[in-house]
Amino acid sequence: MVGIPESHPRRNSLLSRKMIVDATKNGLLADSAMIAHGRGEAFDYLLGEKTSDSARLAIKESAARLILSKYPVISVNGNTAVLAGKSLIRVAAVLNCPIEINIYYRTKERINNLYLLLENEKKVLAQEEGPENWVGNWNSAVMSVEILGKENDGQIEGLEGPRSICSAKGIEKADVILVPLEDGDRCEALVSLGKQVLVVDLNPLSRTAKMATVTIVDEISRVAKLLLEDVIDNDHPPTEWNNSENLIQALKIIANNATS
Amino acid sequence: MVGIPESHPRRNSLLSRKMIVDATKNGLLADSAMIAHGRGEAFDYLLGEKTSDSARLAIKESAARLILSKYPVISVNGNTAVLAGKSLIRVAAVLNCPIEINIYYRTKERINNLYLLLENEKKVLAQEEGPENWVGNWNSAVMSVEILGKENDGQIEGLEGPRSICSAKGIEKADVILVPLEDGDRCEALVSLGKQVLVVDLNPLSRTAKMATVTIVDEISRVAKLLLEDVIDNDHPPTEWNNSENLIQALKIIANNATS
Repeated sequence: MVGIPESHPRRNSLLSRKMIVDATKNGLLADSAMIAHGRGEAFDYLLGEKTSDSARLAIKESAARLILSKYPVISVNGNTAVLAGKSLIRVAAVLNCPIEINIYYRTKERINNLYLLLENEKKVLAQEEGPENWVGNWNSAVMSVEILGKENDGQIEGLEGPRSICSAKGIEKADVILVPLEDGDRCEALVSLGKQVLVVDLNPLSRTAKMATVTIVDEISRVAKLLLEDVIDNDHPPTEWNNSENLIQALKIIANNATS
Repeated sequence: MVGIPESHPRRNSLLSRKMIVDATKNGLLADSAMIAHGRGEAFDYLLGEKTSDSARLAIKESAARLILSKYPVISVNGNTAVLAGKSLIRVAAVLNCPIEINIYYRTKERINNLYLLLENEKKVLAQEEGPENWVGNWNSAVMSVEILGKENDGQIEGLEGPRSICSAKGIEKADVILVPLEDGDRCEALVSLGKQVLVVDLNPLSRTAKMATVTIVDEISRVAKLLLEDVIDNDHPPTEWNNSENLIQALKIIANNATS
């Protein structure tokens, strides 16, 4: 990208920002997507813009739970699809699970644009070599990742209105859901249906972060790359997982960065 | 506004967000304005979305310095004009000083749109009653607030390119500048020219916050209202002002909110 030297200490953050600005112009994101991204930037800044040890552990825990899941699904909103769509398709290919587009401000046009983005990325990724240490037919694994979300044939019990809509083969059926950047109410409803909800949220104080089964307090594009390694080479069996304790570690990092 | 009850605890934050979204659609703001707003939201959230005692003190200090200034100016970017333009015009009317539109991503069209916004607000404000405890002809005080920024006839020494451009009668001539949401390099250049730079920045760790003469770590629309009170009834003479010490107070609030 023009204007951001390779050596710039905040290069990744500035590249992500540009991706979000461009995607907004291209009709992939809601009005509020850039504001949400800015909030994320501020929290990431306070977290030092790197994956902490506690986040790394939460990623390993999430991988272990996704691997053991009977019906895993990866739910993506617009920002997630734009920033980490490719890596999450790779994760879905390894897990052999669907990806569901599930956006808060639901319009047919945006769901369709995101669907086309992900289907297009699948075609590109299918041509690449499979990830290191993964064994199998990568082309077929990638191409069989189903992109759900257009069909609107499922429902999240306990919610009303547009936020209750989901895919019957995706979130409705799933026992374990990876949901980056989820809305608090929806997270709560999914947990109360007995599903395991693994969230990625840069704000460790958010209701979603507090409600989730496992909260990864980290930036989604960093998370997705590490998660791919972990769903291939998982050396971490699922634990009893104390999510509050893990969140406290993230809060300590923020407090330390604020006062050091 | 439809959809946000009067009693909603985060009503002001949600209203501000809507103002920024709408202003972006209306061509008043750069692409990155919503992202900057989101960053501000996150810091304000960590600050408890209220004016802290240390911020209140920094506002009083800023008022005292503006009152004693020979050539004060209020510099506004797009987000500031949208969120706090009206209150800052009132402050400028009381101080009898100009407002300068100074935007980072400078286009003639956006400067012109912001100029029209502020000139229009002046006409509305001139019809209202003067603020409490203020004595004089309010209509004439408001109408004589000059909106600078279109003329591009000044320069900030020590900077190059578009960021060096300013108004000769505004920032170039000023001895005290109130600059909400300033860029770090420009803040540094202004300080090194011997000017007093009073900034409003929600991120107490930013380079601007650290470089400024006085840093108000608070949200601009809250600040502008309090500043109006203080430039009318100032009971606080300027002090030696330890800006680092004041910033530490803001950082402590963030650290406490993160760990409590």
